[in-house]
Amino acid sequence: MPDYRRRAAREAMSVRLDVNGMMAEAIGQAGVGTDEVDGLAMRAVETAHALQAKRAAGELPFYDLPYQKEAIGITKALAAELRAECDTLVVLGIGGSALGTKTLLSALEPTRRVIVADNVDPWTFGKLLDGLDLTRTAFNVISKSGETAETMAQFLIIRDLLLRQLGAVDYARHVVITTDADAGALRQIVHDEGFRSLDVPPGVGGRFSVLTAVGLFPATIAGLRIDDLLAGAAWMDSRCQESKLWQNPAHLLSTLLYLADTQRRQNIVVVMPYSDRLRDFGAWFTQLWAESLGKAETVDGAPTHVGQTPLTAVGATDQHSLLQLLVEGPADKVVIMLRVEDHGREIPIPEAYADLDSLGYLGGAGLGQLLNREQYATELALVQQQRPVITLTLPQLNPFALGQLFYLFEAAVVFAGALYRVNPLDQPGVQASNRLTYAQMGRAGFENERAAVEAWVARKRSEYIL
Amino acid sequence: MPDYRRRAAREAMSVRLDVNGMMAEAIGQAGVGTDEVDGLAMRAVETAHALQAKRAAGELPFYDLPYQKEAIGITKALAAELRAECDTLVVLGIGGSALGTKTLLSALEPTRRVIVADNVDPWTFGKLLDGLDLTRTAFNVISKSGETAETMAQFLIIRDLLLRQLGAVDYARHVVITTDADAGALRQIVHDEGFRSLDVPPGVGGRFSVLTAVGLFPATIAGLRIDDLLAGAAWMDSRCQESKLWQNPAHLLSTLLYLADTQRRQNIVVVMPYSDRLRDFGAWFTQLWAESLGKAETVDGAPTHVGQTPLTAVGATDQHSLLQLLVEGPADKVVIMLRVEDHGREIPIPEAYADLDSLGYLGGAGLGQLLNREQYATELALVQQQRPVITLTLPQLNPFALGQLFYLFEAAVVFAGALYRVNPLDQPGVQASNRLTYAQMGRAGFENERAAVEAWVARKRSEYIL
Repeated sequence: MPDYRRRAAREAMSVRLDVNGMMAEAIGQAGVGTDEVDGLAMRAVETAHALQAKRAAGELPFYDLPYQKEAIGITKALAAELRAECDTLVVLGIGGSALGTKTLLSALEPTRRVIVADNVDPWTFGKLLDGLDLTRTAFNVISKSGETAETMAQFLIIRDLLLRQLGAVDYARHVVITTDADAGALRQIVHDEGFRSLDVPPGVGGRFSVLTAVGLFPATIAGLRIDDLLAGAAWMDSRCQESKLWQNPAHLLSTLLYLADTQRRQNIVVVMPYSDRLRDFGAWFTQLWAESLGKAETVDGAPTHVGQTPLTAVGATDQHSLLQLLVEGPADKVVIMLRVEDHGREIPIPEAYADLDSLGYLGGAGLGQLLNREQYATELALVQQQRPVITLTLPQLNPFALGQLFYLFEAAVVFAGALYRVNPLDQPGVQASNRLTYAQMGRAGFENERAAVEAWVARKRSEYIL
Repeated sequence: MPDYRRRAAREAMSVRLDVNGMMAEAIGQAGVGTDEVDGLAMRAVETAHALQAKRAAGELPFYDLPYQKEAIGITKALAAELRAECDTLVVLGIGGSALGTKTLLSALEPTRRVIVADNVDPWTFGKLLDGLDLTRTAFNVISKSGETAETMAQFLIIRDLLLRQLGAVDYARHVVITTDADAGALRQIVHDEGFRSLDVPPGVGGRFSVLTAVGLFPATIAGLRIDDLLAGAAWMDSRCQESKLWQNPAHLLSTLLYLADTQRRQNIVVVMPYSDRLRDFGAWFTQLWAESLGKAETVDGAPTHVGQTPLTAVGATDQHSLLQLLVEGPADKVVIMLRVEDHGREIPIPEAYADLDSLGYLGGAGLGQLLNREQYATELALVQQQRPVITLTLPQLNPFALGQLFYLFEAAVVFAGALYRVNPLDQPGVQASNRLTYAQMGRAGFENERAAVEAWVARKRSEYIL
């Protein structure tokens, strides 16, 4: 196991950002010119300073999550307690309360069963409940606000189930609540019913919370090495302190994506890991990028709508699905490939059928070798068609690398928010849907929305329904 | 169990297409006007006639897959044999050889274990092999061409494993090959080694193959009701014979999407099922739409690049991820919601915490009710922001409904191909990546590509690598 206190170990496991396939030298007019990047250098420096000042003032606490020794200690201690009491942890959470944990569980090697329930589909939630031994199961209910409808509905169901099956004395030991330290309904319930609990630190939104108790508690239960994860994040943090734009991975990444979007109409970002285990990372990235940058802003009195659309593809699988569109369709995409140098396992392809042209060439190589050669082939095929591509290489897929990835994209999206001049920390656009749901559920105070719900049914024209 | 030979049963289980949220009456200038649709009516009629003529001439055989009694009988008979011999079927296939089957397995209720291995990631493929009892496992190797690199590599590995563990006499009983009836390396191998095999019918490409042996064989092994699936497809076929554009679900769907893309720059199609079990349907749709329509064409001597970009979101989960972007980001998307009226199960939300505003309102409803109300709320929230939305409602999620969905989108994409004036059946853009992989694997005849591979490494500038 590498000792990441040593700089050589950190360097050796450093995630490498290769932007060659994004630049004009490689792909002509579809690529970004060095002059364009340099043209933004002054603004980039100002932006970096402004963010640094906010960080120092405690206004962007996500930056400092790798260093919260006390909170991390509390999380570990509670996880140790729970590991002694249960075989299975079920996380009840959605969006930012789920996506980081799902990424960790599928990318790494859990030694204990942790399941994330992040929807209210009665079929899948029912199947999940059917298969649980409640006496050996704990539930981690996660909602910063303490009022997320989906998570609260799940909580009401499992609380009732626990009460009925385990009784009023024991049920509380099967629930751990992760929520705001002071406010909200869940914190109130913690006080009233004596559940064990963890805090989501103030000022850290869901999509920036994977390195808080939100992600670290289930990860520790699963037996993952969270110290390495945090060390990876800290290492990327140190790399992202670099003042020169050309040497700062987060700032260079977001500057290039911003220029691609605003100067080249490349408004779709495809994250394409060549590793099944990073599929969920794509989903994590999707939330981060879409919610942080997909914003309406008013410029000179007129509303404008910004934000790149994120999309996940998995190599080599989706070479047989999306690649045709990426290569020949509209030139509106940037592809970010994630390449894993050492997959942690290799499977040799046996030599056979030497007489058959279309099979004989495969023997002797390894499956991982084939996968990585396909990544390289597709990178080059995109470049040959003047399609921009960035490659992030992970020496191995381990907690240290994943910590780097999380931190890199979080730092990048906040930087991009400044370039787009939007607030990357809010998500005002989701309120209308929430209110219209409350209205249908009969929640008090949403009578106007109820009228809107009924009006929409009434307005529908039957000739438009087939 | 409904008897779909009765028209009333088919009507009752009919998938409903609601395009109200797409029209100018609902969303103003972002919506399509009836005049625009009517303006295409003549072309639509001509297109429908041309496709009908091709169908009659046997040039579009996918249209008639629901009626291939002989082929279906052969598939069922072989599946019955295999069910007696094995507990687990592993499908080795990628892209169109995998996505339909994955959709069927996750949407329906398998009674036998069928696993789809659709990547060459050594980690996940290794884990899969670790967990198999080879004496009770069969492998279905699927490749129409018989030379798909990923599937052939998997085949070489499992063939070697079977030979070593079961011996030269028994190993062949554990492999079923689905490939072209006459051509290709796999057909050659079937002849030479006596594997049992099934045919991919001529003229049916991977992404249109779910209703051939490619999808039907694993589905039958899994115990799914393929007769209902085919009946659903046939029912949608009959609905899509309607000559009036406004009454033909496939033609209306593709006409609206085509107009949205070409007249409104709404070039991203988000498929958003409110059901966990339809997530993989989104992946199936992604391949169908991206590979069929993502094309370069030459118009008046200049290359143009067409095709909408498909994207999957799952409700309610991704309301906490993509919704912010859908509502406030660029107005470049059409959302197609899939709503399941009856989820096949309901879970009551217990009444509790009546004194807490943010929880008390939930009790008394069901989880599926909450999910469907969220669908409706989000549909309306999008309409309120003038964002186009189409809703497809499935009365239940069963084989008959799924058969309708497959057929609807296959018919729609071929119709859309005609509107875009592209060939929806080919995928020339993926060849370059394949050839560059062959080059790295040392396959004979790809020496020029090998030089290109080496040149790209050499061209990379180190200052662009951080």
